[in-house]
Amino acid sequence: MTTSVDALRARLAEITDLTRTAGLLSWDQQTMMPPRGSGARAEEMATLQRVLHERATHPELGRLLDAAGVEVDVADLDDVDAALVRVGRRDHEKAVRVPADLSADLARAAAHGHEAWTRAREADDFGAFLPSLERNLELAGRYAACFPEAATPYDALLDDYEPGATAAELDARFGEIRAGLVPLIAAIAHREPREEGPLRDDYPADAQRAFVWRVISALGADDAAWRLDESVHPFSAGLAQGDIRVTTRCRPGHLGPALFSTIHEFGHGLYEHNVAPELDRTPLADGASLGIHESQSRLWENIIGRSEPFCRWLLPRAAEAFPDALDGVEVAAFHAAANRVAPSLIRVEADEATYPLHIVLRFGLERDLLEGRLAARDLPAAWNAGMADLLGVEVESDRHGVLQDVHWAEGAIGYFPTYLLGSAISAQLWQSLAADVPDVEARIAAGDFAPVRDWLREHVHRHGRKLLPGELLERATGRPLDVAPYLDYLRDKYARLYDLDSDAVAAEA
Amino acid sequence: MTTSVDALRARLAEITDLTRTAGLLSWDQQTMMPPRGSGARAEEMATLQRVLHERATHPELGRLLDAAGVEVDVADLDDVDAALVRVGRRDHEKAVRVPADLSADLARAAAHGHEAWTRAREADDFGAFLPSLERNLELAGRYAACFPEAATPYDALLDDYEPGATAAELDARFGEIRAGLVPLIAAIAHREPREEGPLRDDYPADAQRAFVWRVISALGADDAAWRLDESVHPFSAGLAQGDIRVTTRCRPGHLGPALFSTIHEFGHGLYEHNVAPELDRTPLADGASLGIHESQSRLWENIIGRSEPFCRWLLPRAAEAFPDALDGVEVAAFHAAANRVAPSLIRVEADEATYPLHIVLRFGLERDLLEGRLAARDLPAAWNAGMADLLGVEVESDRHGVLQDVHWAEGAIGYFPTYLLGSAISAQLWQSLAADVPDVEARIAAGDFAPVRDWLREHVHRHGRKLLPGELLERATGRPLDVAPYLDYLRDKYARLYDLDSDAVAAEA
Repeated sequence: MTTSVDALRARLAEITDLTRTAGLLSWDQQTMMPPRGSGARAEEMATLQRVLHERATHPELGRLLDAAGVEVDVADLDDVDAALVRVGRRDHEKAVRVPADLSADLARAAAHGHEAWTRAREADDFGAFLPSLERNLELAGRYAACFPEAATPYDALLDDYEPGATAAELDARFGEIRAGLVPLIAAIAHREPREEGPLRDDYPADAQRAFVWRVISALGADDAAWRLDESVHPFSAGLAQGDIRVTTRCRPGHLGPALFSTIHEFGHGLYEHNVAPELDRTPLADGASLGIHESQSRLWENIIGRSEPFCRWLLPRAAEAFPDALDGVEVAAFHAAANRVAPSLIRVEADEATYPLHIVLRFGLERDLLEGRLAARDLPAAWNAGMADLLGVEVESDRHGVLQDVHWAEGAIGYFPTYLLGSAISAQLWQSLAADVPDVEARIAAGDFAPVRDWLREHVHRHGRKLLPGELLERATGRPLDVAPYLDYLRDKYARLYDLDSDAVAAEA
Repeated sequence: MTTSVDALRARLAEITDLTRTAGLLSWDQQTMMPPRGSGARAEEMATLQRVLHERATHPELGRLLDAAGVEVDVADLDDVDAALVRVGRRDHEKAVRVPADLSADLARAAAHGHEAWTRAREADDFGAFLPSLERNLELAGRYAACFPEAATPYDALLDDYEPGATAAELDARFGEIRAGLVPLIAAIAHREPREEGPLRDDYPADAQRAFVWRVISALGADDAAWRLDESVHPFSAGLAQGDIRVTTRCRPGHLGPALFSTIHEFGHGLYEHNVAPELDRTPLADGASLGIHESQSRLWENIIGRSEPFCRWLLPRAAEAFPDALDGVEVAAFHAAANRVAPSLIRVEADEATYPLHIVLRFGLERDLLEGRLAARDLPAAWNAGMADLLGVEVESDRHGVLQDVHWAEGAIGYFPTYLLGSAISAQLWQSLAADVPDVEARIAAGDFAPVRDWLREHVHRHGRKLLPGELLERATGRPLDVAPYLDYLRDKYARLYDLDSDAVAAEA
C-alpha cells in the first residue's frame, strides 16, 4: 500500500529534479552560455520557476503534508520522513504566499540582472546596471510584502537564506564582532606591514587553474563527481551529490584569489557532496542554511587554507607548479603573505580581519535600499562613503566598488550577512573539531584531510537540511551560536603573525 | 483584447522554453556532466519530460488551438499564426496519444541508455548495453502502438523525425540510390586506390580543435552565439537562435573526422541560427524535419566541405596550422584524400559513395528489431553479416560495429533514414542554389561563404518548421523529392576524381 509519505516523497522528488534543473540553467549561464543566449535563458528560467511554483504550491502537496504528518512523529529530529514533512511544510507554506507571476518575474529579473551586471561591471558603468537593480529591489519588496508577519521586510528576505534569523539579532552579533575587531585591526596597523610578495609573481592563469584543481583534489574532489570551471564570480553548484561544480577566477600574476576562492568553493561543494545518500532526491539534500553553508567554505578557505600547517603542506607543491615564483620561499613568509592584513577594496580578496567589515557595509546598505532609506541611484556614493568610514580606503571605480559582487544583480538581498555568520560558525565548529581530533594540525601538515572531512560529514554534512541551523550547531558544538571562538581565533592568529600581545588586544575590546 | 492566438502563443512559448531546457540537460550530459551525475540527470530528464507532456496535452491548449484556428486562415503557408496553429495542432494531437508515464519512461530510458552505451562502447561490451537496448525497443514499441493508424509500427516512429514519410516510400528511394551506387562503387574499386596520406599525419587533438573552430568561424560561426566542445559522438544543439552548440571528436593523427564532422554539425547549427527571428520562442523555431536538417549538414560537410574549391581555400589555412603535415601538399592530393572511396566500418567517417550503404543497413536492422523479426541479442551477428554483404568489410569488434552510433542508445529508432534522405535533398537544393548563384564555386574558393548562407537562409532556414518538408522542397527547388540530382552529383564527382567514364557508370545503373 502506498502511504502518504510515499506519495509525498514522489512529489518532493519532482520538485528536487526541477530545482536541480534550474541550478543547471544558472550554472550554464555563468560558465558556458554564449552571450547571445541570455534572452532565451531568462525566459527558460522564468518558465521553469513558474512550473516549480505550481508544483510547490499544489493543493495536493498541502494535503499530503497534512496526511503524512499523521503517519510520522514530526518532532523526531533523527527521522528522515519527519524531516521531510517539517521542511516540506515550511517550503510549501512559504511558496503559497507568493503569486506565480511574481515568482516567474523574480527568476526572469535575476537572469536579466546577471547579464546587465556582467556588462556593466566590464564597462565600469553603474548606470547600465541601475535599471536592473531597481527592478530587483522592487520585486524583492513585493516578495517581502507576501510575509507581513515579519518584523521588517528585510527579515522576510533573510529567512530564505537563514531560517529564523532576524536583522536585529544579526545586528547584535555583528556589533560584538566589530567591537572585537576594531582594536585588533588598529593594533595590526601599528606593526610593520607584511609582504604580499610570494603570492604576487609570475602566475600564469592556465597554470593556476591546473594547480588549484590539484589542491582541491588533494582536499577531496575527484573528476568522477566534480568539475572546475571559470566564471566572472566564483561560485559552487551542487547539482547532485555526484555532480558538484565549483568555479574559480584566475588573475595572472596573483595566486591568492584563485587559490583561496577555489578552496572556499570546495568547502561548499563538499557539504552537498557528503549529504547522507538517503536524503538524495529530496529537498533535504541541501545545506541547513546559508550561514552553515558559509561556515563550511570559510572553514576550508581560512581556518584550514590560511593556517600554518596547511601552508607547510601546500608550499612544496606550489613551488613545484611555480618554481620561478616560489623556489626558496620560506613557509613563514608564505604563511604571512596568505594572512597579510590590509584594508582593501574587494570582499572576496579581503583578509580575515577586515572581511567582516565588508559584510557590515553590505548588510547596512541592502537594508537601507530595501526599506527605502537609500535610493538605488545613490548607492555608489553611499558605498564609497561606507568604505572610507569602515575600512579607510578610497573607491576609485564602481567596478572595484559597488559593482564587484553578483548578489544584488541576481536579486539576492539578505544573503550577505550569512557570510559573516558563517565565519563565526566556522570558528565555533573548529573549536569542537580540534577537541575531537587533537592531532588535526599535524594531519593537515601531512596532507591528510580525511579526519577533517570525516568530522564535518558526521557533525554537519550528512544532516543536509534535516536540522535547522540552530539545532545543527547545538548538536555539533553543544551550544548555540557564540561569537567568542571566532574573536579568539582571530586574536590568537594575528597575535602570532604580528607579534601582538593577545591579552592586550582582547582587553581593549 | 487578448486573442486566442495570443493565448496560444503564450502556451507554446512555455513549451518551447521547457523543450530548450531539456536540450540543455542533454547537451550538458554529453559534454560537461561528471559521470556520477548520471543517475540524477536521468531523473531530471524524466521529470522535465513529464512536465512537458502535461503542458503539451493540456485540454486548454486543445481549446485554444480550436479557437485560434477560427481566427486565422490555417491554409496560409506564409502566415506565422497559421503555421503556429497547424504545427501546434499536429504536436498536440500526437502528444495526447501518449500516456504521461510512457513519455517520462522514454526520457529516463534514453538517459540511462546513453550512459550504458558510453560505458559499453568504451569496454567494447555489447552485453553491457543489451538490457538498455531491449528496454528502448520495448518502449519504442509501446510508443508506436499509440498510433495504430500507421501502416507499420516503424512508420509511427518515423513520423516524429520525418513528418508524413513512410518506410515503403523510403525503401523505393533508397532502392534507386543503391542501384545507382553499386556500379559506381564497383567502377571505383577497379581504379587505383587514392592516398589518404595528407589527412593522416601528426595532427595533435588540441591543435585540431583550434583549427576546426577557425574553419567554422570562417563559415559563419562566432563566439557571441556559438560554442564548440568535445563529446563521444559529435552533435549539434540549437538551444536558442543565439545559443548554438556544436561538438566534435578529435582523433590524434587523423584530421578528417574532426574536420568534416565539425563542418557537418555547423550545417545543423546554422539552420537553427538562421530561423526567422519572428519564429523565436515558438515551436516553429526548429527544422522542418530531420531530413531537411540533414540536408543542411550534409551540404556543408560534403557538397561544400569536400569540394575542390573549398579544398583550395582550406589547404593554405590548414598548412598554416599543421605545417609539418601539410607543407608542400598539392590541392589535388588533399582533395583526392578528402574524397577517397574505401568501404569502411564507421558511418560518420565513411566517404560519400559508401555512406548510403551504412544507412541502408541500419534502416533494415531497426525495422527488423522493432517489428520483432530480429532479437536484440542477435543484433551484432546481423550487423556484421550486413556489413559483409553491403560493404564487403569484416567487423572485428562491436565498438567499431553495432556500438558505434548513439541513436539506438537514446531510443532514437526511425532516425537513421533521415541521413540518406538528407543527402539526397542536399544535392537537389544545391542544384537550385548553383543555378541561382552561378559563381558559387569561385566564391567558395575565395572563402566567401555569404552567398551560400544567404541562399540557404532565404530558401530553407528562415522558414523553420512553418512548412512541411515536401512544401519546403517544392518551394526551394520547384519540384518534389527527386534522387536524380544526388546520383548525378556523385557520378560526376567521382568520374573526375577517379577518371571514370561518367556516362558508362550511369548506363550500368
